[in-house]
Amino acid sequence: MSKNHKRRFPRLTLARRRTPPGSAPGTLTIDPAAPKPEIRLFAYSADAFLEQKLSDPAQIAQYRNKYPVLWIDLDGLGDESVLKSIATQFNLHPLAMEDVVNVHQRSKVDQYGDHLYMVSRMVTFNDRLHAEQVSLFLGRDFVITFQEHPGDVFDPLRDRIRTNKGRIRKLAADFLAYSLIDAIIDSYFPVLETYGESIETLEDHAAFKPDRPCMTRIHDLRHDLLALRRAIWPQRESLNSLLRLELPLITPETRLYLRDAYDHCVQIIDIIETYRELTSGLMEVYLSSLSNRLNEVMKVLTIIATIFIPLSFIAGVWGMNFQHMPELRWTFGYPLAITLMALTALAFLIYFWRKGWLTSTVDPPTNDHKQ
Amino acid sequence: MSKNHKRRFPRLTLARRRTPPGSAPGTLTIDPAAPKPEIRLFAYSADAFLEQKLSDPAQIAQYRNKYPVLWIDLDGLGDESVLKSIATQFNLHPLAMEDVVNVHQRSKVDQYGDHLYMVSRMVTFNDRLHAEQVSLFLGRDFVITFQEHPGDVFDPLRDRIRTNKGRIRKLAADFLAYSLIDAIIDSYFPVLETYGESIETLEDHAAFKPDRPCMTRIHDLRHDLLALRRAIWPQRESLNSLLRLELPLITPETRLYLRDAYDHCVQIIDIIETYRELTSGLMEVYLSSLSNRLNEVMKVLTIIATIFIPLSFIAGVWGMNFQHMPELRWTFGYPLAITLMALTALAFLIYFWRKGWLTSTVDPPTNDHKQ
Amino acid sequence: MSKNHKRRFPRLTLARRRTPPGSAPGTLTIDPAAPKPEIRLFAYSADAFLEQKLSDPAQIAQYRNKYPVLWIDLDGLGDESVLKSIATQFNLHPLAMEDVVNVHQRSKVDQYGDHLYMVSRMVTFNDRLHAEQVSLFLGRDFVITFQEHPGDVFDPLRDRIRTNKGRIRKLAADFLAYSLIDAIIDSYFPVLETYGESIETLEDHAAFKPDRPCMTRIHDLRHDLLALRRAIWPQRESLNSLLRLELPLITPETRLYLRDAYDHCVQIIDIIETYRELTSGLMEVYLSSLSNRLNEVMKVLTIIATIFIPLSFIAGVWGMNFQHMPELRWTFGYPLAITLMALTALAFLIYFWRKGWLTSTVDPPTNDHKQ
Amino acid sequence: MSKNHKRRFPRLTLARRRTPPGSAPGTLTIDPAAPKPEIRLFAYSADAFLEQKLSDPAQIAQYRNKYPVLWIDLDGLGDESVLKSIATQFNLHPLAMEDVVNVHQRSKVDQYGDHLYMVSRMVTFNDRLHAEQVSLFLGRDFVITFQEHPGDVFDPLRDRIRTNKGRIRKLAADFLAYSLIDAIIDSYFPVLETYGESIETLEDHAAFKPDRPCMTRIHDLRHDLLALRRAIWPQRESLNSLLRLELPLITPETRLYLRDAYDHCVQIIDIIETYRELTSGLMEVYLSSLSNRLNEVMKVLTIIATIFIPLSFIAGVWGMNFQHMPELRWTFGYPLAITLMALTALAFLIYFWRKGWLTSTVDPPTNDHKQ
Amino acid sequence: MSKNHKRRFPRLTLARRRTPPGSAPGTLTIDPAAPKPEIRLFAYSADAFLEQKLSDPAQIAQYRNKYPVLWIDLDGLGDESVLKSIATQFNLHPLAMEDVVNVHQRSKVDQYGDHLYMVSRMVTFNDRLHAEQVSLFLGRDFVITFQEHPGDVFDPLRDRIRTNKGRIRKLAADFLAYSLIDAIIDSYFPVLETYGESIETLEDHAAFKPDRPCMTRIHDLRHDLLALRRAIWPQRESLNSLLRLELPLITPETRLYLRDAYDHCVQIIDIIETYRELTSGLMEVYLSSLSNRLNEVMKVLTIIATIFIPLSFIAGVWGMNFQHMPELRWTFGYPLAITLMALTALAFLIYFWRKGWLTSTVDPPTNDHKQ
Repeated sequence: MSKNHKRRFPRLTLARRRTPPGSAPGTLTIDPAAPKPEIRLFAYSADAFLEQKLSDPAQIAQYRNKYPVLWIDLDGLGDESVLKSIATQFNLHPLAMEDVVNVHQRSKVDQYGDHLYMVSRMVTFNDRLHAEQVSLFLGRDFVITFQEHPGDVFDPLRDRIRTNKGRIRKLAADFLAYSLIDAIIDSYFPVLETYGESIETLEDHAAFKPDRPCMTRIHDLRHDLLALRRAIWPQRESLNSLLRLELPLITPETRLYLRDAYDHCVQIIDIIETYRELTSGLMEVYLSSLSNRLNEVMKVLTIIATIFIPLSFIAGVWGMNFQHMPELRWTFGYPLAITLMALTALAFLIYFWRKGWLTSTVDPPTNDHKQ
Repeated sequence: MSKNHKRRFPRLTLARRRTPPGSAPGTLTIDPAAPKPEIRLFAYSADAFLEQKLSDPAQIAQYRNKYPVLWIDLDGLGDESVLKSIATQFNLHPLAMEDVVNVHQRSKVDQYGDHLYMVSRMVTFNDRLHAEQVSLFLGRDFVITFQEHPGDVFDPLRDRIRTNKGRIRKLAADFLAYSLIDAIIDSYFPVLETYGESIETLEDHAAFKPDRPCMTRIHDLRHDLLALRRAIWPQRESLNSLLRLELPLITPETRLYLRDAYDHCVQIIDIIETYRELTSGLMEVYLSSLSNRLNEVMKVLTIIATIFIPLSFIAGVWGMNFQHMPELRWTFGYPLAITLMALTALAFLIYFWRKGWLTSTVDPPTNDHKQ
Repeated sequence: MSKNHKRRFPRLTLARRRTPPGSAPGTLTIDPAAPKPEIRLFAYSADAFLEQKLSDPAQIAQYRNKYPVLWIDLDGLGDESVLKSIATQFNLHPLAMEDVVNVHQRSKVDQYGDHLYMVSRMVTFNDRLHAEQVSLFLGRDFVITFQEHPGDVFDPLRDRIRTNKGRIRKLAADFLAYSLIDAIIDSYFPVLETYGESIETLEDHAAFKPDRPCMTRIHDLRHDLLALRRAIWPQRESLNSLLRLELPLITPETRLYLRDAYDHCVQIIDIIETYRELTSGLMEVYLSSLSNRLNEVMKVLTIIATIFIPLSFIAGVWGMNFQHMPELRWTFGYPLAITLMALTALAFLIYFWRKGWLTSTVDPPTNDHKQ
Repeated sequence: MSKNHKRRFPRLTLARRRTPPGSAPGTLTIDPAAPKPEIRLFAYSADAFLEQKLSDPAQIAQYRNKYPVLWIDLDGLGDESVLKSIATQFNLHPLAMEDVVNVHQRSKVDQYGDHLYMVSRMVTFNDRLHAEQVSLFLGRDFVITFQEHPGDVFDPLRDRIRTNKGRIRKLAADFLAYSLIDAIIDSYFPVLETYGESIETLEDHAAFKPDRPCMTRIHDLRHDLLALRRAIWPQRESLNSLLRLELPLITPETRLYLRDAYDHCVQIIDIIETYRELTSGLMEVYLSSLSNRLNEVMKVLTIIATIFIPLSFIAGVWGMNFQHMPELRWTFGYPLAITLMALTALAFLIYFWRKGWLTSTVDPPTNDHKQ
Repeated sequence: MSKNHKRRFPRLTLARRRTPPGSAPGTLTIDPAAPKPEIRLFAYSADAFLEQKLSDPAQIAQYRNKYPVLWIDLDGLGDESVLKSIATQFNLHPLAMEDVVNVHQRSKVDQYGDHLYMVSRMVTFNDRLHAEQVSLFLGRDFVITFQEHPGDVFDPLRDRIRTNKGRIRKLAADFLAYSLIDAIIDSYFPVLETYGESIETLEDHAAFKPDRPCMTRIHDLRHDLLALRRAIWPQRESLNSLLRLELPLITPETRLYLRDAYDHCVQIIDIIETYRELTSGLMEVYLSSLSNRLNEVMKVLTIIATIFIPLSFIAGVWGMNFQHMPELRWTFGYPLAITLMALTALAFLIYFWRKGWLTSTVDPPTNDHKQ
């Protein structure tokens, strides 16, 4: 296996790193390989704004109840004490915290007392598909997000908060939560664009050069689309339940925006399903190209063998050592034999030409079926 | 493959040209390649009619509230200021305007305060399949349509307005909106007729000449039917929600007509699903033709090789240089050898004839495949 | 293409002969090839009965309101004036009349004021599958049926009316409507029986003689089952909505009979789905028979080539012209050489026999797998 | 192929023996091949019991209203007068009686006035799959069952009535009806067990001996599972509607037992669906075994041909009759030539061995395919 | 068949060991091979705890009503009297007890008077997949579990009870029931992890070494995933009905935990469906690898045959014994002939090289199939 080849395996770990069966519910099982948390705090109102990197979660306390919206933005889940400290300060439910660290959750919305817990899956494509779980808690005046790794799609949003662009600073925490979810959902579009281009390339590849790398890439494509589908389908459900639940935390105006995010979500599902259908079509194209190629190989073999085997037989006849073979002594015996062979070959060629075997059906692509 | 062959690629861009992830919702991201807008205004009542080409959207103001129905018919989405001017005059919602310029929306109906926003997808077939997003705003006394490119299926409708044919001038804006949607839905029928003919042609092609262009055309057909299906399925949903919502903007009489449009929509879906099933049957026919062909090639090879290889061996035996081969000196040795060879060949031919291999199974179609 | 071969194409016209896109709704677009209408009138009560062929639809007026049930039975849709005259007399809705002449409607039930409009699809099999649209209007005291062509499945019903057999003369128009729909639904059973027999025949054909006509017949079968399915599925829906709607036009007793018709409809769908599954199994049997056959051909080639190619080589060795080949001068050199060849051939035969290649797996069918 | 092979054809008659289209509803069309009816009467209370074979249905009258439960158990539908006599005595609905003799009904529950009509399908496996329609009428104090042929799965139940075992004699007619349905549903389990064993056997057959009988058996298996599925799916629906309808005829206690029968029904559906998935997997295994076998055949051919064709060529070169071929006169020319040939053959063998072609991939199973 | 090969068969017994059809409902049919029961009793409150191995079920009586929670933990179903004794003491319903011993139940929740009966399926993977039915009765102050065999996934839970870790000792019987179900559901994760690893391994195996063990393993994988799916799907339904039923036995707090278990259940279904899609992709990869391999074999054969057959023919020509073949007497005749042959071979090689046949498409993976 080449190194590049391993790239698809991490996706199959979807059943791993669970709390051991039978543990008490609400146990936080920290993955030892998870990066240490980095905490950033954003606090804002329409006319005030504060951004702070925190080294200790205990510092959060001093900012509470001073701004209409507080956003705790945490990257990395590798320290149980930090997570517990935040959970305690904001009174987050232990079952929700268990899901924060078990990073293979399906997207969902759970209501716990006065706060909402939402899980989403943010995707990026950078040589290969990365999917990262984003956990979001929404309270009356705070939003807390937990991400697995540094790096996300929220930078334009952070800029909008910093520069007071758009309506975000004027609105409450629910609009911030919507904006985060919207950014996550919109992160699927550039990724899907990449896959759209892959499919286009593979369509010609499969039709004209059906080799193993082609098959591997089709298989990888199916893998990735399956992973994307697993990530976005539950997102649609969770947005739908958010819209239906009529929660007091979410204003009617934000609900209108959430409906828009829901529409985008449905559109993404639509595109993924279309790509999945195209991908299974690709496999058929690939297999039929392989068959075509086998047909071509067999035709070449058959033509050559069919022409020369009878000729060899004719030569063999006059290579026999019988004493009484009068034609061997004819002056023009040899030229006549050669002529007979030539006519035999010609007869076969005409036969094959009429059957249409002499024109290839697997021509290499020419200029007219370029993209 | 002809030049038309480039046609399938644009369809895969369905994930492109989105507002960048993380932008403020409601941002209008104008596609730089979009054509400049052309605005036509139709204003009519049962006995008055006015048609006007406008160079500046500000001119619309003077026609408002003078006619019971005002239709702003805009082609081309390449100028943000024009779009914003219209949005401001008619108080159109920013989220809806964002969807107007992001021309890869699913068909839908959204209710914003006193107006409705509907997205539909109009199709034409002209060498290749074109699908264009039509955005429609319906207010109490106005209809606004936004199209991507000049050229549409509304000309017969415009003539009916101009010549006061049918009931359209007697009825309100909701009937105009219905008539536009009905024309869009009916635009699918001639396109589907084209595909029906394609399938008929390909059925013979796949059965009797399974070459690569045939495979490519089947694959393109599947592409196009998938695109049509993506366009019409959400249309059915949006018509259904229009019928169910009991909106005050839509009179009971128009509702009756919308039910009819809904029936047409379901009929189109039915035809597309039938065509899709036929298309997957086509691929099977194609692959089984390929197999048949391979069988045929192998049979020819086997017959030729099987007949001549033993004959060559016989000739080889008497071509050996042993000194004590008495038959070589017989007077009739040579004719006997030839006779032996002829009998061997005949025996094989009879064997193959009894196996039925001498009659081709890939003959061009004759009268014998009646049902 | 033979003439018989075209038989399946008419089915693909399902997208044709529509009113041009953009026409005013309710326009009657008469198909120029449609036959001229023939009108028959049945009027009856429990003890009176009248049957009349009408040349002019205006004659209908004199029979109205004289009998509890009036059945206008019209064959052929080729005269707009006749259709319009009937529509006016019975106050039939223009949208319904548009569907009467657009003969590719899905089965449905529409309620228009005081009458019901139902579309059904009647099938017959007579060399090939024919499907014909039957439009039925049910009013308080009348039933009007529109058919595309003369010839239908209603003759036993007409006899029951004429001879006052069963309860039909004693009951109202709704029972006549039910009896017509029941006759249409029951027309599927003999057609399906024909297809059941086709499948049985094809099962042996595909397993023992996988030639192209077999593939064409499987493909045609799939076509026809798809057409039947498209015809009967919406019928089920429309019967269901008829049962659910609790219409005053339909008495509780007739409702009981309609439930029975609904059960038959579901049974037909069940049979069609079973046949469709069997048909896709058929294609698999066909393809695996093809593979089996290729295997057989290749085995014959391999056996012949494998036996004779080494023998030819041995003969070739002693056909070389080296001067120092002592065995050429041995008295028993030649017999020894022949013996060596025979042993070689025998060794290969034993090898193949042990591999099981010498027994065919594609024997022609023998008496034990007859039907 | 054994004689049993005829077995699959009767199943395709599922569209046959219908009342002719257009007959009056409620007509009893007796199948002339149906056996004559045999009537058995069971009458019981907690402490009384009577079992009687009746020759004339008129005898039933004397037993009515004397026992809390009366069970008329009729085998054979070949006499219209008997059926009509029973229908009249118990006031059974003509539509239900029509379904009794049309023995291809889907399982269902219909409510007619004071009695319930239920259709079920009882299966047995005895060389081949038999499915028989059981019609059951349940009234306040009677149960009537109609079967097509003598022989059923009710004998253990009859013994429980005779010997007063279990609670059956203490309870009313609804519990008898439940017990009959439960026995019918439980009759699927031993049949399914037979199919489970078939699948196990076929799994090895398909993998190691992919011949035509194997394909035929897979195809038959699919047929039978499809037939079982058609029989049991509607049974689930009818049990479900029985549970939901809250009928006064059925006591809450019997309802609890019916829920248990419903669970068994769902379990049977589950098993059938599992078997169907395994069966389609079987076809794939069969086809891939065929491919494997073809690969093997081709490898043998290729190895033999590839080794001996070049050798034959070398022999041919020195078989040429040129006068100036110095090596022909060398003393060791012949041994050198033989050595050259041996080395060539060896080179090819090493090449194939390194490609892994010399080890068969279709060996009979050995210990190496553990998981 | 090797011994290992039989491993998948037990799964097909899913239709076996049922109560004989027609038996009285509620009959306990003990499987003679079932192990004898072992009974453990756990009784606890927040501050008291008692664990006891019981030899006689009658001993249970003395512990009743003394502790808020009593857990009877029974392994092995081989003794009818023990089961009956427990059923009588706790008043368990006979239909439920019938399901306890018929160990092929679907997961379900049934409500019987004052207790709940739940069936779940616990899985372990230990060389092969084991699935075991766990029956659980929940009453106000007791939980009774019946398992088929000793050994389960509850040990961590038992430890939590013994050591009073977590909240379990402080809560009622419903929380114990939840904890048991949660442990059962969590037992699927490590099993699925094993299958995820199997799929990863098989992906390379199928692409680079498509032999029969590979096919068998794919087939076994499909078997196992089907079995897992059958086990977990009904679990989701039964948890869902538990959440919906609003039973008084289950406190709102436990309901919150059950919702969490339900989420895990949905996640497991998600993973299984993903694995099932990957597995069918695997079969395609396997088949296309087989095709690739056949192509490769055919190409080798064709290249060798195509090069040497014409050469042999040329040699054959000059091996003929005609007397008048002037070139045989040329001094450089022989070298010229050899040169001609070399050129012919070269021409073919160049032809094949340009066709791309000389580069293998089935090379072991190298760096060139990056994406």
